[in-house]
Amino acid sequence: MPAAIPEKFLDLFNKRAFANLATLMPDGHPQVTPVWCDLQDGYVLINTARGRQKDRNMKRDPHVSLAIADPDNPYRYLEVRGQAEEVNAGAGADEHIDRMAKKYLGQDKYPYRQPGEVRVLYRVKPERTSTMG
Amino acid sequence: MPAAIPEKFLDLFNKRAFANLATLMPDGHPQVTPVWCDLQDGYVLINTARGRQKDRNMKRDPHVSLAIADPDNPYRYLEVRGQAEEVNAGAGADEHIDRMAKKYLGQDKYPYRQPGEVRVLYRVKPERTSTMG
Repeated sequence: MPAAIPEKFLDLFNKRAFANLATLMPDGHPQVTPVWCDLQDGYVLINTARGRQKDRNMKRDPHVSLAIADPDNPYRYLEVRGQAEEVNAGAGADEHIDRMAKKYLGQDKYPYRQPGEVRVLYRVKPERTSTMG
Repeated sequence: MPAAIPEKFLDLFNKRAFANLATLMPDGHPQVTPVWCDLQDGYVLINTARGRQKDRNMKRDPHVSLAIADPDNPYRYLEVRGQAEEVNAGAGADEHIDRMAKKYLGQDKYPYRQPGEVRVLYRVKPERTSTMG
């Protein structure tokens, strides 16, 4: 069982809250970008596309951190540190990105798909969490 | 001269936009937290307090990344990667945090000062930027 995300902050995953995902570049420099996020069975889910910088980074070095701020109060946030592992590429990740499109855009299908794009689903097992607010 | 921040994204520094600052823990794991930010002479300024995790991290390893999303459009953001260096602790950093309180809270004085807290001002020289939106 992964370390639990504090119950008081679970509501963030029901909002259109972005995760600022930090990964590590090949030279060890951190990289950070906002991404959609999801929670399932205690794991934070991140959906990206094969070959993107964060996909390449997480494959090479799974150490990541995510900061998720409350869209209704930027002084309230959750940080989750852990290791990312790929759980699915292709059909399962496609289904998941459509669910994320529903959550974040109110659309049934993810509308930004590029030709030839392969979606990849990662899960992050929380090893440590910190919160503010 | 540091690498320039794209002119099209300079407006972010005039908004109440938070920077999600990624630093490196002693074991190399990234850590990320939302912080206030400022731009001066092409450097991104970050104000923290002596002894906080991000202060200790930046002193030990200056490699950082910041993602700054537009509060009016979460799909528009700027990422800045670079090295952080301390420019001031004490009076200059105090003056700066009051300016940040004005920008983010509309207050003349930073209201969250803790007894004994020493403010520390860092600047990040942009080495690489990426943008979306």
